[in-house]
Amino acid sequence: MSALPVYVAVVGVGLVGSEFINQLLSLPISPFELVSLTSSTRSLFTHDPITISTWKSQLEGAKDRPDLEKLTERLSVLLASSHRIILVDNTSSDDVAAFYPKWLKAGISVITPNKKAFSGDVELYEQILESSQSGGRFLNESTVGAGLPVLSTLKDLVATGDKVTKIEGVFSGTMSYIFNEFSTGKPDGPTFSSVVKVAREKGYTEPRPADDLNGFDVARKLTILSRIIAHSPSPGGLPRLQSFKSVQTTSLIPAELEGIPTGDEFIARLPEFDERFAKMRADASADGQVLRFVGVVDVVTGQVRAGLERYPTSHPFATSLGGSDNIIMFHTERYGARPLIIQGAGAGAAVTAMGVMSDLLRVI
Amino acid sequence: MSALPVYVAVVGVGLVGSEFINQLLSLPISPFELVSLTSSTRSLFTHDPITISTWKSQLEGAKDRPDLEKLTERLSVLLASSHRIILVDNTSSDDVAAFYPKWLKAGISVITPNKKAFSGDVELYEQILESSQSGGRFLNESTVGAGLPVLSTLKDLVATGDKVTKIEGVFSGTMSYIFNEFSTGKPDGPTFSSVVKVAREKGYTEPRPADDLNGFDVARKLTILSRIIAHSPSPGGLPRLQSFKSVQTTSLIPAELEGIPTGDEFIARLPEFDERFAKMRADASADGQVLRFVGVVDVVTGQVRAGLERYPTSHPFATSLGGSDNIIMFHTERYGARPLIIQGAGAGAAVTAMGVMSDLLRVI
Repeated sequence: MSALPVYVAVVGVGLVGSEFINQLLSLPISPFELVSLTSSTRSLFTHDPITISTWKSQLEGAKDRPDLEKLTERLSVLLASSHRIILVDNTSSDDVAAFYPKWLKAGISVITPNKKAFSGDVELYEQILESSQSGGRFLNESTVGAGLPVLSTLKDLVATGDKVTKIEGVFSGTMSYIFNEFSTGKPDGPTFSSVVKVAREKGYTEPRPADDLNGFDVARKLTILSRIIAHSPSPGGLPRLQSFKSVQTTSLIPAELEGIPTGDEFIARLPEFDERFAKMRADASADGQVLRFVGVVDVVTGQVRAGLERYPTSHPFATSLGGSDNIIMFHTERYGARPLIIQGAGAGAAVTAMGVMSDLLRVI
Repeated sequence: MSALPVYVAVVGVGLVGSEFINQLLSLPISPFELVSLTSSTRSLFTHDPITISTWKSQLEGAKDRPDLEKLTERLSVLLASSHRIILVDNTSSDDVAAFYPKWLKAGISVITPNKKAFSGDVELYEQILESSQSGGRFLNESTVGAGLPVLSTLKDLVATGDKVTKIEGVFSGTMSYIFNEFSTGKPDGPTFSSVVKVAREKGYTEPRPADDLNGFDVARKLTILSRIIAHSPSPGGLPRLQSFKSVQTTSLIPAELEGIPTGDEFIARLPEFDERFAKMRADASADGQVLRFVGVVDVVTGQVRAGLERYPTSHPFATSLGGSDNIIMFHTERYGARPLIIQGAGAGAAVTAMGVMSDLLRVI
């Protein structure tokens, strides 16, 4: 560990960003010095101490508008004085993600819960891999399962020579909540639309629930997992995914409701399709099964898919899951017939920020 | 990462040691160079390449007897030439553990699945902590849960400022197997002695099953976990454990069978106590519960205990557990009402060696 402080620049101060800043500034013994904060409207760059009680007002009082080019220049000056620099991207922005290769090449490490880069176009993904070979380090543990040790576990399995045969899980807290409520193994229960409505009211869905029900969030997470295995010595039959759009994703949005612009209208019309979902539930129940929206990376067949599947009521996806938990099963050669399982809250500001903090501590 | 190879010396070439050596020598791109192997009868120290197909014969052909003092001297010479050195202790020996402080102070990193040091006398534990502050690094991920990410997850929770309130789990693969078979929620089933007998025949128990049934293995793991929290900024009410013997451990060995020297005699007499175990199972079943041998670190009350407890048949310890799986639940402030859960094989050479390898990759 260097005796010089490690400079940290944060882009994005929303729910996760704020929680991350609070966790960072609460470390009892900190090798870090927070030197920059950037929100959607302001940018602060300072050598004055940034403290837990003043960072919001310091940022509000900043005169600069957000400008990533200018931020990059300023960080480059610090690099020249041989400080280590970590940039933490707490946004979900494609624009910020596009800067990663430049930062990494310059020697700035990048840590982020932002899924865009690693689940987007393969060109950006490969640029990041290449740039981080010789430059800064890139870590994104909290893109899958938030604070749960999902990516680090997969990387350990792969790096130590285990052969992953399949990853299977409930990767969306929203989908988890919806189907834990909707399908319990009994033939009936609440209507699908009522469950989605309540989930939205509780803040578990996006303002437009269609943005959860399309399955893209799960497809993005599968892309991140799949690429780690595909770039390992045991890629199995996994394809080079062009982007998360290459994942075979079965949306839950009824075709008739595709493209509806507002969440309110979507919710208002969803009851028209309750019968369809009720029938799926009853059919599953008749076979002793529940419905779960899962993601699967089948390394052997090379299939990567997201969609509604059935599991016996005795399966951990039925018995062990509750609330908006994620659950992830790693089937590997070493673990044999009984998979390695990780379960717990996979969303929320506190646990997501914790995943980001863990990465930060890992880098130094 | 240094351009010089990182030298690795291995002590212990039993099941886990052999598997570790094979994993190490199978790395596709390796920054490591294996320079020394020590078994219970031989010690090899060489700059000739050690390969996966020849290491056993190289070690058998070595002339030196095992001598940790001499090994330390030889490694010190390498240190002087500015190489990084990692010593991997794959034994379960107290004698090897006693050397850790000396190695760490010299700047040699130590990685081990050996529980003895961190669960033994607090003096040795604190010496290791102190020596690793400025010297080599000490990692022992696979002492709890083998390859499962148990210690790293706990360390991440603690380091990022979460408050752990309770850890609760089935930490012994042997105990897991025995009670998964013996107590399924039904009022009857196989006799306790028959389950233990089969477990022994399958190699799931120590040659003397009493060495599992005394609960010491669980007490050691709890000591390791408890000390991580006790040395954090949020130690709750946890005591400074003098050793694993300070854990409140309820042995399963009937008092009448204490001190029986051989496993065969123990197994022969165990049926005398089947009725006692059958009654516990029937009582639990009448309340809709199963029996599990668990370990609990209750941070709030400061209690650390290992023993037989009851869980509802709907609890993950009943529904999700099978085979000889470990399962560990972390209850924390951030995870709230629904704990973070890690489950999977917690014993076996391949997954234990994997935990050791992960530590090795983490150190560099």
